[in-house]
Amino acid sequence: MRPTITPTQLVDRALITDLVHEYCRALDAMELNALVALFTDDCVVEYGPTISSHGACALRHDLGRMWRWARTAHHTSSNVLVRFADADTTLITSAVWAWHEAPDGHTATATGQYHDTVVRTADGWRIAARRQVLTGNDAGFTVDIHPMPRKADERTAAR
Amino acid sequence: MRPTITPTQLVDRALITDLVHEYCRALDAMELNALVALFTDDCVVEYGPTISSHGACALRHDLGRMWRWARTAHHTSSNVLVRFADADTTLITSAVWAWHEAPDGHTATATGQYHDTVVRTADGWRIAARRQVLTGNDAGFTVDIHPMPRKADERTAAR
Amino acid sequence: MRPTITPTQLVDRALITDLVHEYCRALDAMELNALVALFTDDCVVEYGPTISSHGACALRHDLGRMWRWARTAHHTSSNVLVRFADADTTLITSAVWAWHEAPDGHTATATGQYHDTVVRTADGWRIAARRQVLTGNDAGFTVDIHPMPRKADERTAAR
Repeated sequence: MRPTITPTQLVDRALITDLVHEYCRALDAMELNALVALFTDDCVVEYGPTISSHGACALRHDLGRMWRWARTAHHTSSNVLVRFADADTTLITSAVWAWHEAPDGHTATATGQYHDTVVRTADGWRIAARRQVLTGNDAGFTVDIHPMPRKADERTAAR
Repeated sequence: MRPTITPTQLVDRALITDLVHEYCRALDAMELNALVALFTDDCVVEYGPTISSHGACALRHDLGRMWRWARTAHHTSSNVLVRFADADTTLITSAVWAWHEAPDGHTATATGQYHDTVVRTADGWRIAARRQVLTGNDAGFTVDIHPMPRKADERTAAR
Repeated sequence: MRPTITPTQLVDRALITDLVHEYCRALDAMELNALVALFTDDCVVEYGPTISSHGACALRHDLGRMWRWARTAHHTSSNVLVRFADADTTLITSAVWAWHEAPDGHTATATGQYHDTVVRTADGWRIAARRQVLTGNDAGFTVDIHPMPRKADERTAAR
């Protein structure tokens, strides 16, 4: 069967994609009020086993840690994939490329994915849950992000 | 004349863009069944003069070579451009940034474009042909991808 | 109030996003005629305090400076955000990742944002004004781009 997208879903996809991009823009500008307005009040955001924020207030405070960097550049490449769990709940995968520069000039680069649950609220779409996984990083990046799972090697020794 | 996009084309563009993004997601996860489901059975995929796969079965086997990397991160930046050749055939250009890490820790990074022919089938849009061109790479990346053609320098010595 | 997007705006967003992506594709290919066709005749393009072009003819000439690089890769990550100032005027933010390789092999990488004013003309959407800001760069990149403004650190010493 051919998959399709309804007119309503087209609009929803565009609004949700804006949300994912706005996160990066606001984070690089450290506009934390604009940033946390993208999340539900009771959001759960988990970057790694020991790095998580419960609720928008905590998230706003916790993301203050990004001021330790002199500059950052977060790009959510365009790999934004939107799946509808139901009319008001979507599961989003996006690819992120993140670069950070410390005041002493050393840099830390990471690539990964955000796995989001984005829900329709009275005020529009909001991120209710975010989980980050790491696909790659350079030696300067030492934050403990969940590793990206990968299928096991299927090749036999003979191949 | 002002260009426009029909409602049907808007939906098609979204479905096709998903296809381009899903390729990267599935490749990094090494979900090869999900990956080859994006292609037609008789697809032709050409990464370089000596690296091509004819048919989805061959492609599935050939992409097993990516297991030689311990980790990969493929981002199809958002530069996905969709042109309609006819109602059921589109020509796609997308920009890819690809990072690979070997088990010994050395890395290989490349940037380039995918030039795809994506066709409408009974099961939805599928990639019928893909050709990669290389716009840039670091010293660790030694795979023989087609170079990206560039217009010749127009400047005169005097300018 | 829930934000929404009209069917006309959906089409406009797609056409404008194409414009942003086409800029990168044309610049890497050095297809300068295709590139300047994306701009209004009286466009103002400002990359930094001392690097600006006034009008499409000047822009076409000035971008010839990119031939000093042997290769370039410009990715406008997908962070394309479109805001409508009125029905015919939009303010666009997009994230750019730019890599350049000189004939001697040294490279220069920069990340930043383009802040564009894109207007509806009789021939479709065109970039009337572009301003670049820099979010990050490596040591090889020495071009004087406007720095990206960032909110001041809110943390107190006690936190």
